[in-house]
Amino acid sequence: MINQQLLNPSSVVVVGGSDDVYKPGGAVLRNLLESPFKGEAYVVNPKADMVQGVKSYHTVEELPQVDCAIIAIAAKFCLHTVEVLAREKGTRAFVILSAGFSEENHEGAELERKIVEIIDSVGGALIGPNCTGLLTTHYNGSFTSPVPQLDPKGVDFVSGSGATAIFIVDNGMRKGIKFNSVYAVGNSAQIGVEEVLEYYDESFDPETSSRIKLLYIESINKPDKFLKHASSLVRKGCRIAAIKSGSSEAGGRAASSHTGALASPDIAVDALFRKAGIVRCNGREELATVAGIFMYPELKGKNIAIITHAGGPAVMLTDALSNNNMGVPHIEGPKADELLSKLFGGSAVGNPIDFLATGTAEQLGFILDACENDFDEIDGMAVIFGSPGLFPVFDVYELISERIKNGKKPIFPIFPSYGWVKKEIEEFVERGGVYFPDEVIFGSTLAKVYHTPAVQPEDAPMPCVDVAAIREVINAASDGYLAPAQIHNGGYRPRQRGCRLRRGGVRRYSPRHRVPTRDEGGRPRA
Amino acid sequence: MINQQLLNPSSVVVVGGSDDVYKPGGAVLRNLLESPFKGEAYVVNPKADMVQGVKSYHTVEELPQVDCAIIAIAAKFCLHTVEVLAREKGTRAFVILSAGFSEENHEGAELERKIVEIIDSVGGALIGPNCTGLLTTHYNGSFTSPVPQLDPKGVDFVSGSGATAIFIVDNGMRKGIKFNSVYAVGNSAQIGVEEVLEYYDESFDPETSSRIKLLYIESINKPDKFLKHASSLVRKGCRIAAIKSGSSEAGGRAASSHTGALASPDIAVDALFRKAGIVRCNGREELATVAGIFMYPELKGKNIAIITHAGGPAVMLTDALSNNNMGVPHIEGPKADELLSKLFGGSAVGNPIDFLATGTAEQLGFILDACENDFDEIDGMAVIFGSPGLFPVFDVYELISERIKNGKKPIFPIFPSYGWVKKEIEEFVERGGVYFPDEVIFGSTLAKVYHTPAVQPEDAPMPCVDVAAIREVINAASDGYLAPAQIHNGGYRPRQRGCRLRRGGVRRYSPRHRVPTRDEGGRPRA
Repeated sequence: MINQQLLNPSSVVVVGGSDDVYKPGGAVLRNLLESPFKGEAYVVNPKADMVQGVKSYHTVEELPQVDCAIIAIAAKFCLHTVEVLAREKGTRAFVILSAGFSEENHEGAELERKIVEIIDSVGGALIGPNCTGLLTTHYNGSFTSPVPQLDPKGVDFVSGSGATAIFIVDNGMRKGIKFNSVYAVGNSAQIGVEEVLEYYDESFDPETSSRIKLLYIESINKPDKFLKHASSLVRKGCRIAAIKSGSSEAGGRAASSHTGALASPDIAVDALFRKAGIVRCNGREELATVAGIFMYPELKGKNIAIITHAGGPAVMLTDALSNNNMGVPHIEGPKADELLSKLFGGSAVGNPIDFLATGTAEQLGFILDACENDFDEIDGMAVIFGSPGLFPVFDVYELISERIKNGKKPIFPIFPSYGWVKKEIEEFVERGGVYFPDEVIFGSTLAKVYHTPAVQPEDAPMPCVDVAAIREVINAASDGYLAPAQIHNGGYRPRQRGCRLRRGGVRRYSPRHRVPTRDEGGRPRA
Repeated sequence: MINQQLLNPSSVVVVGGSDDVYKPGGAVLRNLLESPFKGEAYVVNPKADMVQGVKSYHTVEELPQVDCAIIAIAAKFCLHTVEVLAREKGTRAFVILSAGFSEENHEGAELERKIVEIIDSVGGALIGPNCTGLLTTHYNGSFTSPVPQLDPKGVDFVSGSGATAIFIVDNGMRKGIKFNSVYAVGNSAQIGVEEVLEYYDESFDPETSSRIKLLYIESINKPDKFLKHASSLVRKGCRIAAIKSGSSEAGGRAASSHTGALASPDIAVDALFRKAGIVRCNGREELATVAGIFMYPELKGKNIAIITHAGGPAVMLTDALSNNNMGVPHIEGPKADELLSKLFGGSAVGNPIDFLATGTAEQLGFILDACENDFDEIDGMAVIFGSPGLFPVFDVYELISERIKNGKKPIFPIFPSYGWVKKEIEEFVERGGVYFPDEVIFGSTLAKVYHTPAVQPEDAPMPCVDVAAIREVINAASDGYLAPAQIHNGGYRPRQRGCRLRRGGVRRYSPRHRVPTRDEGGRPRA
């Protein structure tokens, strides 16, 4: 399980480290040496005495004591390596990059099992095998690139797929998203998504911990553990977004083995996420967009002021927000008139606030001031500002950076001219900003985040279910069908505190209406 | 209306042209001079004799005869300028960039009306006012940047919003999308989206015309004309995608003046697009994605082979396709086994075809060969290939370029590592390729394109409606409700050729079931 040797090792050996940075063993060593890692680094490579300036031992037996081992050698050699390290070298953290284990065949699975057994026996931690490694604020133990900018308030990211992780990091970096840690857990032989969540939960410090967690998951093997720690983190003020992929195949399998839609694993995932207050995402772009939104202060209400120099995107954002139950309220009154008088003729402040293609940074400042101080109905601002190709917009982007830092209401910047004002955008990102390239993707994602149900309280009141009364109603149904009125009055009473079933001491939700009536034959159902 | 002087002028004057390329008059002159334009260029600028190397006249009266005028001066001076050009200089094409017309106030609208009157009186063409101009293969008459790569088989793009147009061009250029023409029609005082469609339709040449049309529209003022030319173009083999924005506000207005959902303008737009076979898009990113899909051969069936070196994105693409009614059929049999034998151990060919992070360009070639020649059930291939950050992938992207050019089935490339293998992607785009950055956006958009209904045939058969019989059925309903059986047998007969209502000679669709039964009160409806 996750320990200090894994998180912040004082010494690291790369077994299979080489000068060839096109291979995992070479790339992970380069990344380690270029990272904030300040401890001792060693290499095991039978053919070299020095690798990338680091002392190389020909065998693992020759190594000194070492906290953490990153292993990039063929699967068949891993067991021996782990054995020597665990038993003789005091190694308590293992990152096995190598493939060829349980994902490949039965022999691989057996090998994997033996490795876990050894590591468990010494109280060690294992990431992998078949993974791309991990990145913490203390060191880079992954072979992937690009390496994201580290920030203690950045994203904690756990992924079941290393390639997916790096593709999301690549996407996020372009948008200015920072990362605090990245765990690509591979086969999750010992540490999986659930265990990393457990660690985040149990080590959570309201002062120093990052509050943003992203997950890419293909299977949730321990739903209770997952729910426990995810919802605990959300209750502590964290915000979690996750992709759970494989819905279509899972749906197909479910259909062949179950009958009811409620039994579909994908619906179960939805329910699990809803209970935990997790924003479920559909793909990399949406996950990166949610991460960007998470890096801004939380919206306190659903009303957005759309501020723009370009009408079309503002109309599209209005559609995206209001079609998704967000508000774009009309702005009027003396304060609105006062603002209008500070803008060029032809501008509009009714929301969208359109200050025209010729609008200046100074005018944008007036608009943001008014939204922040004068328009109480506004909860957040979306500023769409690209370029039709006339003049540089450095001053506008600088003003946006400054207002984002000093404002109370969130200001979401949408920058559509990635190609043309690229330098301005890069400068904005270097100053620590996060931007969104497409207003419609932003708008519908903001709505999704805003409307994600709050996490279920720890002591959620349970509905009272009178099983005997329900059974009686069902038994009274002569032909297997029940009229709606019979069901509603059957045995269900509104939620009340302290009421629970006592079977096994476990609280149970009894979903409404799960009365076993037949639904074939076209008869009306309750 | 659109004429040769607008499309391919032998001489162009920029009225208000200057050396200041940060202003429209300077920027449009620079763009014109850098474009393929080979004719005479003039400037009118009272303060200069030479502007950007071009002879400048102090007044419009001093100009020689000139085909086309691009006007970038204050609105109040435009009428006189147009008058002199139209009556004395033989000018028959006008592009008015200036704002301050009907979009601003009543006086502006009056000015605009007078300008149109003059231009109409000499049979001239007018783009604008309040627009960013137009770009054809002959010349660049727009002030916006970046300027897209021109290609006779590229996209024809008509936009009611200049800023939106350039943002979409910027996005599209990054993905490798080429353009044949861009019309930003501004206030559409004379030439609007409908007129440009009319021109595309009437000038369509199966040999030379581009077959891809993109539209950004905020209002459809002439739906009959729009439908006529859009559907005619689609019947001629064109593919059209469009954003019609303002759906939410329009929906709101509709709700206050109408009662039924069928009366909603947004539903009317949907119906119009469906009849014309137009792919309706939700935002810039989706429109650019559809444009990218349009640049590939049309899918002949819905079955896709997903080819990847990264499992996660392949799972997400499988979800996106199969959740949207596309097929990701299982691939098996001797040919599949033969293919598997050519890949590294641990690869999978069942679809997704996963040839692992270590997969080579040669192996990708084997896979594409098999999909093209051996797997008859496959209609197209999606290749997801990024980089976990190890080695360059120039060879893989070059192979994809070559196969796209020479294959019969479409190959859609999804490149997730925009930051890390940027150079490879740029090279791919320079070779003429179009790629997609996100597999989920690609997958759901491909499904949308594939499932867009075909254009309605020119002589679509009409259903027969026996109004008298229907009236009789309704009159027989004692309490205002009708049972489903009564409605179905009432007066509706299946579609048949040559059957139409004769009222006014206009064909009319009679929507099914629009029997005025009440729907309040919770009673079951048909």
